Amino acid sequence: MLTVVDWAPHGLRPHWRFPAGNLGTMPDSLDPAAQLLSLRQSIDNVDAALVHLLAERFKFTQQVGRLKASSGLPAADPGRELEQITKLKALATESHLDPAFGEKFLNFIIAEVIHQHEQIAGTGTIATHPA
Amino acid sequence: MLTVVDWAPHGLRPHWRFPAGNLGTMPDSLDPAAQLLSLRQSIDNVDAALVHLLAERFKFTQQVGRLKASSGLPAADPGRELEQITKLKALATESHLDPAFGEKFLNFIIAEVIHQHEQIAGTGTIATHPA
Repeated sequence: MLTVVDWAPHGLRPHWRFPAGNLGTMPDSLDPAAQLLSLRQSIDNVDAALVHLLAERFKFTQQVGRLKASSGLPAADPGRELEQITKLKALATESHLDPAFGEKFLNFIIAEVIHQHEQIAGTGTIATHPA
Repeated sequence: MLTVVDWAPHGLRPHWRFPAGNLGTMPDSLDPAAQLLSLRQSIDNVDAALVHLLAERFKFTQQVGRLKASSGLPAADPGRELEQITKLKALATESHLDPAFGEKFLNFIIAEVIHQHEQIAGTGTIATHPA
């Protein structure tokens, strides 16, 4: 049976409730196949969010490419890349992920940014460095 | 000069305003170095969101691993992986990303899930298949 806990801030949606219990686990009443389906739906939801965020990130890096090309800013910036790696490693640690994963993830993304810039550079409209 | 547009829903934060103009571009008044700094701050914000979402995704895949191990569900599921690739390619296209990138991204994530499961499997507490 679900019970409810009222922890919504006073004055904000006072009718709104959150189910009690550990929200990170499946209800015991679900059989394993139903639990697996539920987890996979959550994974698919997260994947959709990730892809949309990545699309937004690439829009920003494309703006960076155009800005560098139009303003004569240097394409390469080793200090920026080092700063990004340091930040992502710290974020990974904070999120209980392997810091090496943070670096691998950044390298994966940068490889895609370079790939995109190379494709666009073929049309002569954008610089070829990631960020 | 910033002007404001009131498009907040009636009854919800009526004092709240959003700046007018194209929010996806930089104000012309910023010099290129300031524009670059602003874009990099946005990229860093997106990266932080990505890392936290990935951490959440790995929590789900760890639950999948535990569920499969405890309930005797088969570790491998080729149909599931094909379904994931199809979904991510469609999402990538919808987000104006290269569909091949959707597949590369999924493969990158699955490689990390397998890596995590292998690490945990060394302790004998979890199955070794991604999702």
